[in-house]
Amino acid sequence: MTNASQGWVQIVGIGPGDDALITPQVQDVLAQATDAVGYIPYVGRVAANTGLTLHPSDNRVEIDRSRHALKMAVQGRRVVVVSSGDPGVFAMAAAVFEAVENGDPAWRNLDIRVLPGITAMLAASAACGAPFGHDFCAINLSDNLKPWAVIEKRLQLAAEADFAMAFYNPRSKSRPEGFAKALKTLKAACGDNRPMIFARNVSRPDQTIKIVPLQDTTPDMADMRTVVLLGSSQTRIITRDGAPFVYTPRSVAG
Amino acid sequence: MTNASQGWVQIVGIGPGDDALITPQVQDVLAQATDAVGYIPYVGRVAANTGLTLHPSDNRVEIDRSRHALKMAVQGRRVVVVSSGDPGVFAMAAAVFEAVENGDPAWRNLDIRVLPGITAMLAASAACGAPFGHDFCAINLSDNLKPWAVIEKRLQLAAEADFAMAFYNPRSKSRPEGFAKALKTLKAACGDNRPMIFARNVSRPDQTIKIVPLQDTTPDMADMRTVVLLGSSQTRIITRDGAPFVYTPRSVAG
Repeated sequence: MTNASQGWVQIVGIGPGDDALITPQVQDVLAQATDAVGYIPYVGRVAANTGLTLHPSDNRVEIDRSRHALKMAVQGRRVVVVSSGDPGVFAMAAAVFEAVENGDPAWRNLDIRVLPGITAMLAASAACGAPFGHDFCAINLSDNLKPWAVIEKRLQLAAEADFAMAFYNPRSKSRPEGFAKALKTLKAACGDNRPMIFARNVSRPDQTIKIVPLQDTTPDMADMRTVVLLGSSQTRIITRDGAPFVYTPRSVAG
Repeated sequence: MTNASQGWVQIVGIGPGDDALITPQVQDVLAQATDAVGYIPYVGRVAANTGLTLHPSDNRVEIDRSRHALKMAVQGRRVVVVSSGDPGVFAMAAAVFEAVENGDPAWRNLDIRVLPGITAMLAASAACGAPFGHDFCAINLSDNLKPWAVIEKRLQLAAEADFAMAFYNPRSKSRPEGFAKALKTLKAACGDNRPMIFARNVSRPDQTIKIVPLQDTTPDMADMRTVVLLGSSQTRIITRDGAPFVYTPRSVAG
C-alpha cells in the first residue's frame, strides 16, 4: 500500500558504463525505489535490484517517460529515472522538468531531485589525461532538437574563445552528415593540428581512446557510442612508452 | 619494502564535499594507496584510512606537490593525489601532467591514472534542477594564471554563443575585483534577466543555493566556496511551493 505523500522522483546518473563509477548516493536511492524508468540499456544496468519494478522504454520518448514517472510518483510510488552519465548533461533531467512545466500542476510540488553522476566527457578526459585542465565547453551535435545553424555558430565561437571542447552525440545512423560538417568547420576555425580524442565505450571493458591530429580526423571515427573531445590551442601531448597523455596547462601566457 | 616497479600515482576526485558522492572506484584506490598528497582540507577528508601516510600541503603549491607525488612513485610508493570535485576540471590532474612534462624523464613511464569525480558545477546543477540541459561552458575566473583579457573575451563569446555557463573560483580575498568586472561584462553581453545561481558549500550540510536574476546580482554574492552558474537565454524557472527548479530545455526553436 503506497501513500501519495511519500511518492518521489529522483533522476539519477549511473555514469558512462562502469558500475564502480556509480556514487553511493545513487546506489542508496536505487535501493529505496519501487520503480525504475529509463532507456532500455540503462534500466538493464539496475535490473539486479530486488523489488524494483522496471519500466524500460525506447530512445526518443523522453517526455512520455518523464510523464509516466511523474504520474507514478503522484500515486505514491518512489520512482528513479535512470540516466546514463550525469542526468543534467544532455540527459533525462531537462526532459523531466519540461514535463513538469507543461504538465499537471500537482507535479510541481512533488519531491523531485537530481543526483549527479560521472558524465562521459569527464570519464573520457580522465582516460586520456586532463584536456579540460583549462576553460572548456560542451556541445550536443545532434540537430534533432535544434537547427544546425545554432551548432555551427557555437563551434565557430568556441574555437574563437579557445575553449577545449566536448561533443556529445556526434553521429548517428539517422544523422550521418552532421559530424562531417562539424569537422570541416572545426578544421577551418582552429587552423592547427591540436589533438582530437575519440573515446568509445568509455569506462567499459571494450573502451578505446584514439588521439588524432585535428586535420587528420575523418567522420567515421565517431559513432553514437563515442564522446569526442578537442583540445584548445594550448593542449599538449606527453609521449611515453604507453598511450600518450593529453593535457591542457592551467596557465595562459600574458 | 616497496618495489619501484609497483609505484603509481592516481589523481582522484573526491567530489565537492559529501562522501556519498565519492565513487567506489576512488574508494578502492584510497584503500590501496600508501601515501596521500593534496591540499590540507582534501587530505583531511581521507584521513580515516588506516595505513595511509598523509602529506597535506598548502594551496598554490600544486607543482611542488605533484613533483613530490611523482618522486614517491618512482621509489615504489602508491600515491593518491587527492583533488576536490573532478581532478580534470580546474584541479590537480593538469598540474601533475605539467610536472611530468617538465620533470625527470623517468616520470613519463610511471603508472599514472586519473579517476573522475563529481565536479562542483554538476553537483550545483543537480541541486537546482538542470541548467546544463543544453550546451554549456565552464570558465575559471581566477586571473592568477591567465590575463584578465582572456577571461573577458571568453565571457563575451560565451554570451554570444548562448551557452549556459559555470564559473569556478569566482572571487577570493586576493582578487576582490575580478567577479565585479565579470558581472558587469555578463550583464551587458547577455542583456536580459536570466537566472544566475550561487551554489555555496555544494553537497555539504550547510549548502546554500541562491537563484538571482542576472541584473540584480552583486559581487558579494560569491566567494571561494561558491560555484556560480548562469543560464542561457532559454533557461526557465519553474515556481512551486518550495525552492524553484531551474532548467534549460533540450530544444532550440528553428
